[in-house]
Amino acid sequence: MSEQSEALQALLDAEPSLTRRPCVPALEERLFKVHPLLDHGFVRVVDYMGDDGAIVQAARVSYGKGTRKASSDRGLIRYLMRHRHTTPFEMCEIKLHIKLPIFIARQWIRHRTANVNEYSARYSILDKEFYVPDPEHLAEQSSDNKQGRKEDTLSAEQSAAVLELLKNDATRTYDTYQKLLNDQGDGTPVDEGEPQIARELARINLTLNYYTQWYWKIDLHNLLHFLSLRMHPHAQYEIRVYGDLIADITRDWVPMAYEAFEDFRLGGAFFSRRELEVLRSIINEGGNPDTLLPPSGLSFRERKSFRDTLHIPPPKRD
Amino acid sequence: MSEQSEALQALLDAEPSLTRRPCVPALEERLFKVHPLLDHGFVRVVDYMGDDGAIVQAARVSYGKGTRKASSDRGLIRYLMRHRHTTPFEMCEIKLHIKLPIFIARQWIRHRTANVNEYSARYSILDKEFYVPDPEHLAEQSSDNKQGRKEDTLSAEQSAAVLELLKNDATRTYDTYQKLLNDQGDGTPVDEGEPQIARELARINLTLNYYTQWYWKIDLHNLLHFLSLRMHPHAQYEIRVYGDLIADITRDWVPMAYEAFEDFRLGGAFFSRRELEVLRSIINEGGNPDTLLPPSGLSFRERKSFRDTLHIPPPKRD
Amino acid sequence: MSEQSEALQALLDAEPSLTRRPCVPALEERLFKVHPLLDHGFVRVVDYMGDDGAIVQAARVSYGKGTRKASSDRGLIRYLMRHRHTTPFEMCEIKLHIKLPIFIARQWIRHRTANVNEYSARYSILDKEFYVPDPEHLAEQSSDNKQGRKEDTLSAEQSAAVLELLKNDATRTYDTYQKLLNDQGDGTPVDEGEPQIARELARINLTLNYYTQWYWKIDLHNLLHFLSLRMHPHAQYEIRVYGDLIADITRDWVPMAYEAFEDFRLGGAFFSRRELEVLRSIINEGGNPDTLLPPSGLSFRERKSFRDTLHIPPPKRD
Amino acid sequence: MSEQSEALQALLDAEPSLTRRPCVPALEERLFKVHPLLDHGFVRVVDYMGDDGAIVQAARVSYGKGTRKASSDRGLIRYLMRHRHTTPFEMCEIKLHIKLPIFIARQWIRHRTANVNEYSARYSILDKEFYVPDPEHLAEQSSDNKQGRKEDTLSAEQSAAVLELLKNDATRTYDTYQKLLNDQGDGTPVDEGEPQIARELARINLTLNYYTQWYWKIDLHNLLHFLSLRMHPHAQYEIRVYGDLIADITRDWVPMAYEAFEDFRLGGAFFSRRELEVLRSIINEGGNPDTLLPPSGLSFRERKSFRDTLHIPPPKRD
Repeated sequence: MSEQSEALQALLDAEPSLTRRPCVPALEERLFKVHPLLDHGFVRVVDYMGDDGAIVQAARVSYGKGTRKASSDRGLIRYLMRHRHTTPFEMCEIKLHIKLPIFIARQWIRHRTANVNEYSARYSILDKEFYVPDPEHLAEQSSDNKQGRKEDTLSAEQSAAVLELLKNDATRTYDTYQKLLNDQGDGTPVDEGEPQIARELARINLTLNYYTQWYWKIDLHNLLHFLSLRMHPHAQYEIRVYGDLIADITRDWVPMAYEAFEDFRLGGAFFSRRELEVLRSIINEGGNPDTLLPPSGLSFRERKSFRDTLHIPPPKRD
Repeated sequence: MSEQSEALQALLDAEPSLTRRPCVPALEERLFKVHPLLDHGFVRVVDYMGDDGAIVQAARVSYGKGTRKASSDRGLIRYLMRHRHTTPFEMCEIKLHIKLPIFIARQWIRHRTANVNEYSARYSILDKEFYVPDPEHLAEQSSDNKQGRKEDTLSAEQSAAVLELLKNDATRTYDTYQKLLNDQGDGTPVDEGEPQIARELARINLTLNYYTQWYWKIDLHNLLHFLSLRMHPHAQYEIRVYGDLIADITRDWVPMAYEAFEDFRLGGAFFSRRELEVLRSIINEGGNPDTLLPPSGLSFRERKSFRDTLHIPPPKRD
Repeated sequence: MSEQSEALQALLDAEPSLTRRPCVPALEERLFKVHPLLDHGFVRVVDYMGDDGAIVQAARVSYGKGTRKASSDRGLIRYLMRHRHTTPFEMCEIKLHIKLPIFIARQWIRHRTANVNEYSARYSILDKEFYVPDPEHLAEQSSDNKQGRKEDTLSAEQSAAVLELLKNDATRTYDTYQKLLNDQGDGTPVDEGEPQIARELARINLTLNYYTQWYWKIDLHNLLHFLSLRMHPHAQYEIRVYGDLIADITRDWVPMAYEAFEDFRLGGAFFSRRELEVLRSIINEGGNPDTLLPPSGLSFRERKSFRDTLHIPPPKRD
Repeated sequence: MSEQSEALQALLDAEPSLTRRPCVPALEERLFKVHPLLDHGFVRVVDYMGDDGAIVQAARVSYGKGTRKASSDRGLIRYLMRHRHTTPFEMCEIKLHIKLPIFIARQWIRHRTANVNEYSARYSILDKEFYVPDPEHLAEQSSDNKQGRKEDTLSAEQSAAVLELLKNDATRTYDTYQKLLNDQGDGTPVDEGEPQIARELARINLTLNYYTQWYWKIDLHNLLHFLSLRMHPHAQYEIRVYGDLIADITRDWVPMAYEAFEDFRLGGAFFSRRELEVLRSIINEGGNPDTLLPPSGLSFRERKSFRDTLHIPPPKRD
C-alpha cells in the first residue's frame, strides 16, 4: 500500500503539465493529497474530467437555442437539476482512491454505475489496520429506526469494554491470518516447518472492520445520487463521513452543480399525492393540520414525517 | 432465515397454476428446492422467464427472414453464440436465492448487470453459520499462479490445526457479536444491565467466512459471462462450486444455449495475432513448434499456454 | 412481420402449461394479444416474471423481521416505494413486443437499463407503414414549453394540407426505397436490368415516421421510471400513448406496486429547499403566498409551478 | 450548431492551463479540432481522463505486488488485455463530439454503457445536411452476407441515378419540414397566414440520412469493445469509418493499450471446441485439413471461416 502512496507522492512532486482541458484550480489543489477519515481511512482525488462549464456545454448541445433563455450558466444548471435532466451531469467524471473498512465497502459497491479496482487479498497481504469506533459514535443513535444505534448512552466504562472486545478480536484474527500465511511478505516462510495457506483462503479469517482500498471512478450524476443516499441521516455513520467529505470535494469541483444539488435535492422534500391534498387544504382553505392529518389516510409515520419536514409542531393528540 | 424457507416451502406445496408463458419442465422440477453447497451454502431457483425458444423468437425479430437460413432452432442458437450476437440471450432471465460466505459475496457482487436483494445485518441478526473448508480443499492448489493455494500438501495434523484456528476465531467473534447485541432476538436484552450495541456496528466483528444470502436475478447473457469467469480454473474454489452448480441448472433451463456456450466459449480458445502467425506457419508450411515458438515474440507464459491449449508436448529446450 | 404475428398466435392457441411460478391471471389474459396504438402501432405482452408477492418476498430477505412491522404486503410495498427502496422492484421483469415509429424509438432507446431486440432493416425489408397524426393531435399543444406543439388551432383545411404533405413524402420515399431495393422480397429483382442497392443503404431514404418494432424487456423499477418520464405531460404525445397503455398493463400485473407508484410518484411533487421555506412560512406563520413568493428567490417559473401544484390561484400581480 | 463550433474554437484559442493530472501531448494536439468524416460528419475530442499509466496504476492497486512480475508498464498492459482483466481499462475515459447520420446514430446508441447528450430536434431546428454515399461505396459490398451491399457493380450512370434519387427525396422532405415549421429560426413565421407545426412533429418528415450530433463519453474498456464491433468488416461502412477514425485517436491517447488491443483482440481469433480438436489433429498427428474438416461436425461456414483465418487454401472439393 505504501507503494501507492509513493506513486501518488511522485505525481504530487512532479511538474504540472499544460493542458487545454477544463481545469478546476480548487480541485487541482486537492489532487493526490490524503484526506484522512475515521481511524485509518482516506479519500484521495486521483483524476477528474470536466467542470461546471462542461455540464452547460453538453446541455447546450441537447437543448440548443432553447437553453439561451437560461441567461447564465448557473441558471441553466439549476434548471437542469430542477427538471431532473440528468444526462448533462453525466459528462463530468471523477476518480478517487479510497481506503475504507470492508463492511462499508460492501454497502458502497451496491452503486453499480461506477468503475472499481479493489485491492485484492487473493494476491496481496492485507495490512493490520482495522476500524474501531470513537467512543462517542459507539453510543450515538442514527435515528429512531431499527437499523440505527441504540439510544441508551453507554457509560465510559461500557464503551471502553466494547472497544476492548473489538480490538482483541481483530488482533487475534490477524494473528491467525499471519500464522496461516506464514509468509515474510516475499513468499518465504516465517516458519520453515509450517505450511503456507493460500492468501485467498487465509483472509477469510479477518473481521469485517479490516480496511481495504480501491480506485473508484464515477460520473457526476451518479455521484450526486450516491451522496444523496449516503449523506442521508439514515445511512450508517461510517459511510456518512465518506459522503460528507466527498461532498466537500464535489463542492470545490463543480460549485454551481453542487449548490443546485443542495437546493433541489438535499434541502428539498417529496410530498405524496395524499400529502399534497392535505397541503392544499391547509393553504387554500385555512385547514388545521391537527384536524386534517388524522383522517387523511396517511400512516402514523407519514404524518410525523409531514410535520417534521414542514416544522409543524406535534399535535396535542394525534 | 427459516422464514424464507417456510415461504418457499409454501410455494412448493401450493397447487401449480396454468400459464401461457413458456415453461421448462426440467426447471420446474428444481423450483424452490434447496441445492446444497459447501458446508452451509445453497442455491434455489425462485423464478425464471423464457427458454431456448425465447432466444430464437427474439432473434427472428431482429434478423427477420435471414434467420430462416439457420434451419433449426439449435442451428440459430449456435449461430448467435458463435458470432456473439448477445442480445437474444438477454431475453431470458432467472432469479436465484443463494446462501454464500461473505468473502465469496464480495467477488460475486462485482458482476454489475444483475439485481440483488441481500440479507441486511443492519436490520437483522446473522445466524451462527460460518464456512470452514474441507481438509482436501485446504491443501488444493488452484494452479501455478499466485492467487492459488500453495502446493505443499498439508499433513492431516496440519490441516486439523488450521481448521481448528478458523473455527475458534469464528466462534469467538460470534460470541462477541452476541455479547454486543445483547438481544434475545426480539429486541429484549439478554442481560438487563448491559448495553445493546447497534446491529450495524456489532456485525463488524464477524469474520469474512460468515454466511450471507441474497436474491440474485440476471439475464442469460450476463449469467453465461458470469459462469465463464467463475467456472474458470483460476477462480477461487469456493465460487467455482457455485458456478458449477448454476451451470447444471442452466443446462436444464436452456439446453441448446448451454450446449452452444460449451462449444463456443468454455471449450474454445482465443489466439492472439502472433499465435495465429505461428499456427499458420505450422499448418501451411509444416513448421515445427519447437523451432517457431522461441523467436515468435510470445512470452514464456504465452508459449506454455499455446502448447497446453493445443496439446503440443513441451519442447526439449524452450 | 406477419411471421411474428403467426408465432404469437400459435402461443395464444396453444394449451396452457402448469407452473409453480407466480402467476397473474389478469396479465395472462393479456398475453400475446395485440393492444393497438396510434395508426399502426401496438404493444403485446410476451412474458413476465414475478408479481406483487415477489416484491414483498425480496424485501423480506433484505429487511428481515423488520419488515414484519409493515403488517401487510400492501403496507410493505408502500413503505418501499415511499422510501425509494428500489431493489425489490427490480425483482419483477416484463417483456413486451412493441411496434412504434422510428422517431419514438429514438427517444425510447435512451432508457439504457433494458434489453432490446429490434427489427433490423439491414437484414429485412421494412413494411410500408408510416405514422400520420390524427388531425386533433396535430394542433394539440403539449404545454407552454418550447418543445410542445404550437397553440394556434389549425383549420380543418390546414390540417388536411399538413397531413397530405406528410403522406406524400412518406409515400414517395417508400417508392424510392422499393426502387433502390429492386427486390421481390426473396432476393429476385423486380427489374432485371436495374441494380439492387443494399438494404442497409436503401433504408436511409425512409422518413422518421416509418414503423419499426422490437422486443423490450425491463425490470419493474426501471419500467416505473420509464413511465414517470414518458407519461409526463412534457413528453411527446406519441410516446405518451405508449406510456399510458403500458401503465394499464402494469396496473394489471402488479396492482399494489402500481397504486403505490401513483401515490408516491405520479401524484406527488418535489419541493426545493426554498419552496419548503415558503411552505413553512405559509403554514406556521399564516403567511400569504402573494406576499411570500416574490422575495423568495424562486424564479417566475418556479413560482408558477409552486402555485399550480398547490392549487393556489394566480396572484393579482406577481 | 455553429454555436458549438464557436464554443470549441474559443477553447482552442484559449491559453492552456497547468494541471497535475496525467496529460497526453498527442491527444492535446487533437483536442477540439474537427476530424471530418463522410460528407458532413466529424469527430472532435472534447476531453479525456487518464493515459496508459492510469491503467497500470489501477492494476497495481488490484493486483498488488503480483504485478511487479510484469516488469514493464507495457508488459502489464498486455497481460491485462490477454487475460481480459477489464476493470483497469475502465479507469480511462474520453468525451467526443460527433456528427453522424441518424441511421448510424441508431446503431451507435445500442452501446448502453456510455453517456450521451444528443442534439434535440424537439427543441431545435435541424440543419439541411444529409448523407449521400460516394459512388464508389454505393456499389461496394461489405461481404458475402446478407446485410452487405450487393455485388453487382453499378455503372456510372446507375450510380448517378441512385444518388439523384436520394438527393431529391432528402431535399423534398426538408422543404416540407421547413414549410411545416414556418419559422425564421427565431420563432417568427415565414408566412404569417400559415400555421406553425411543432418542431417535435415536423421533424418526423425527415429521412434517416439527416445528420444529428451528440456528445458521447465512454470508458476505454467499453470504447475498445465498441471498436471491435464497429471496425469489423461486417459492420456497415458508414459506422466503420467512425470506428477507424476513433481507433486512430485511441492509438494516440493510449498507445500501449491500443497495441495490446490489436494483438489480443483485433488481430486474433477465437476457435471453438470442435475447431480446437481439428487443430490438434493437424498439428500433433500431421492431419490434413481437407480430410479432417468434412467429418468434423463444423458447418460449411465454420469450415470456410476456419480456413480463412488460418490461410488454408480452399479444398479441391469440400
